[in-house]
Amino acid sequence: MNFDTITAISTAQAEGAIGIIRISGKNAINISREIFRSKTNKSIDFENKKLTYGYIYDEAIIIDEVLVAAMYAPNSYTCEDIVEINCHGGIVPLKRILKLVLKKGARMAEPGEFTKRAFLNGRLDLSQAESVMDLINAKTNKSFDLALEQLGGSLSEDINLMRKNIEELMAQIAVSIDYPEEDIEEITYGEIINKLKLLFDKVIDLANSGEKGKIFRDGLSTVIIGKPNVGKSSLMNVLLKESRAIVTDVPGTTRDIIEEYLNIEGIPLKIVDTAGIRDTDDIVEKIGVEKSKEFFNKADLVIFVLNSSEKLSDEDREIMKYIVDKKAIVIINKTDLKQAIEEDEINNTLHDKIIIKTSITNKFGIDKLEKEIYNMIIGGTIKENESKLVSNTRHINALEKASNSLKEAIQATKDRMPYDFIEVDIKNAYNYLGEITGETVETDIVKKIFSNFCLGK
Amino acid sequence: MNFDTITAISTAQAEGAIGIIRISGKNAINISREIFRSKTNKSIDFENKKLTYGYIYDEAIIIDEVLVAAMYAPNSYTCEDIVEINCHGGIVPLKRILKLVLKKGARMAEPGEFTKRAFLNGRLDLSQAESVMDLINAKTNKSFDLALEQLGGSLSEDINLMRKNIEELMAQIAVSIDYPEEDIEEITYGEIINKLKLLFDKVIDLANSGEKGKIFRDGLSTVIIGKPNVGKSSLMNVLLKESRAIVTDVPGTTRDIIEEYLNIEGIPLKIVDTAGIRDTDDIVEKIGVEKSKEFFNKADLVIFVLNSSEKLSDEDREIMKYIVDKKAIVIINKTDLKQAIEEDEINNTLHDKIIIKTSITNKFGIDKLEKEIYNMIIGGTIKENESKLVSNTRHINALEKASNSLKEAIQATKDRMPYDFIEVDIKNAYNYLGEITGETVETDIVKKIFSNFCLGK
Repeated sequence: MNFDTITAISTAQAEGAIGIIRISGKNAINISREIFRSKTNKSIDFENKKLTYGYIYDEAIIIDEVLVAAMYAPNSYTCEDIVEINCHGGIVPLKRILKLVLKKGARMAEPGEFTKRAFLNGRLDLSQAESVMDLINAKTNKSFDLALEQLGGSLSEDINLMRKNIEELMAQIAVSIDYPEEDIEEITYGEIINKLKLLFDKVIDLANSGEKGKIFRDGLSTVIIGKPNVGKSSLMNVLLKESRAIVTDVPGTTRDIIEEYLNIEGIPLKIVDTAGIRDTDDIVEKIGVEKSKEFFNKADLVIFVLNSSEKLSDEDREIMKYIVDKKAIVIINKTDLKQAIEEDEINNTLHDKIIIKTSITNKFGIDKLEKEIYNMIIGGTIKENESKLVSNTRHINALEKASNSLKEAIQATKDRMPYDFIEVDIKNAYNYLGEITGETVETDIVKKIFSNFCLGK
Repeated sequence: MNFDTITAISTAQAEGAIGIIRISGKNAINISREIFRSKTNKSIDFENKKLTYGYIYDEAIIIDEVLVAAMYAPNSYTCEDIVEINCHGGIVPLKRILKLVLKKGARMAEPGEFTKRAFLNGRLDLSQAESVMDLINAKTNKSFDLALEQLGGSLSEDINLMRKNIEELMAQIAVSIDYPEEDIEEITYGEIINKLKLLFDKVIDLANSGEKGKIFRDGLSTVIIGKPNVGKSSLMNVLLKESRAIVTDVPGTTRDIIEEYLNIEGIPLKIVDTAGIRDTDDIVEKIGVEKSKEFFNKADLVIFVLNSSEKLSDEDREIMKYIVDKKAIVIINKTDLKQAIEEDEINNTLHDKIIIKTSITNKFGIDKLEKEIYNMIIGGTIKENESKLVSNTRHINALEKASNSLKEAIQATKDRMPYDFIEVDIKNAYNYLGEITGETVETDIVKKIFSNFCLGK
């Protein structure tokens, strides 16, 4: 289906060598033919998917030298006619060509509207469409891989299979409801329970994978804390270097906020760098006890660094108190120096915490630290059958709702409730699962999902 | 000629919907065949300039879903085999594919190296190659148009024609030197002078166009100055709105500095916004007299705003003193209110300055202001035969050197110096002109020129 014609700049909104303006919809080809001429000043019947060299004209004036490719419906990203204009990647040519395309009758695409069309035209289901932004925002290879699997339809397959099973179950139940007197083999309560339990286990498995999936997708906010000169900056530097940290620009116009992620075995650790916090060493004194607690509470992970060549200070003890209930790793650094720290006290106070001895200057213990962070967060290696991690909160919520409905259906079956009563719960589970792939989702939700996309995608 | 294989990310170094990795050189095709598989997992003989859908594989693992286009030598940007991989525009996929291509034997391209190859392979001359970065950095349509003309070869044509004329002249002179006794028609001193004068006029015309050209290319740094509440911010806002200001990211990694350009009839005005200056109203008091002078001196243009409903203050008079010797425009604002300002005193002190009455709140006088800025900077409309403006300082310098050599040749001819003496000056002019198109330029200079390019171009 060709909708109206939309356009946007599809490369990043900054200066680069090449920029792309994308046009999709029923007039994409016509508009492009109007504004494009070949080197010999001819209008072109674009060959499918062929890059053609030439110029963009605004009436008689050349406004850029470009390569243009048309991709005809339905074999395109949106399933509509698409034209991509590769132009010089400066602000002026990009804006100028965009303006010209708008003048010729296209309208500005909403964020994510190209992908939304791929969804509406049935090329991608909703969970696949959502993975597209996860690909672009991915912070580590692992998070990218998860999104790519989702784009490939691995989650959709699972969901569709479960829904098919539910459909079959409902059909069997329906027969028993509609023709209770006839000589058709009826499904028994026991059979229903067995089938529901199988479904329930699958749904719960997927929902439970969400905890890990979300970590890979969204990262963990991490605080590195400790007294002056214990080695916090050295630790940061070593980790940054080891992990080839990814610095991403947060999408938006101001580009004020730059987020920095450490990559620990695929887990994106976002080092919290609130104004003034990283600069100051004596965090408790600086921001006060209450504030400090709040600060620790916001972090998903605390890395507490101690200097083993000195005795514990009051401040160390203060911090130890805060992190007792937190996900925290304790680093006893400077093991290359003469040891003075009260190790027993640390072991007693933080008996359930992982304590690692390091000499950061000698790069001793860093590997262990990375492994321990991974184990602590992910809980050991991810098993082969766990490799499909659900990572999107919306999906996890839908899975949880579906599992609750299935649980209620199982209980109702155990209680020998009438079939049509049980059917309601099963139907709910069916619909909740359908929300993930977009079969049963409301228009508002779809709108909201795509509004979080970047422009031009 | 196919050089070794280079690669780079060719889209802006930030998140976007689409990203492009470019590979050029003798192994571009082989590397791409190694890492790309079609949807049906087949290796592909890339059809020239055809976008092919498929996946990038790192050994057995899919690392992104892409569209790939190969452009075979010599009909490509670099005249070499080029492959462009259009992938998801996130940091992870871009870096990951780049890393894979590097692993397969390509090396990281230097800034501008793709364009440098287009130059070395003879597709673009040096002035055309230089225009490519001007296109990307252009701040207004006018500056873009100038660069596009240069890319089209308009400057090169002029230079090549002049050099051809010089070659002919030198051939005639050579004959007279080599065979003075023979019965060949010799060139006279008078004829040499006439030909040199024609050349000199052309070179000087081009060199003189540089003043305007540079303004369109690089913009003018502009200071808006005046007491509190005279309407400076309103003026900024009106001009910003009228001119659809272009905000460009300065290339670089930090993205700390954002430059803002007003577009006044094609002239990019860069409003100087040094830390603290724009915030403070009483600039003289704040930064001191000496500093203020320095500040004014750095500006190419000063816009001085006065409130006509108040009497002149000491500070106004102070500013008036500073701008006497500057390119400045005086705005007498708030003409909608009761008038109190000493207009005669302003007219006397700033008798050679353009003084414009405005009521910015009523949008009165803004058009006039824009026109006066344009006239003052450009000196009236650009005549048809002036439409080719040289804009690059390197070209302007070369033209000036060439004009000096021609001047010396003319003088030497007038002085009836020996032909081989005159020949030296003419030859110098010939070489200076050749520096513009790159015929006679040194390798170091070429290297330096391309090092100012952005990555991936």
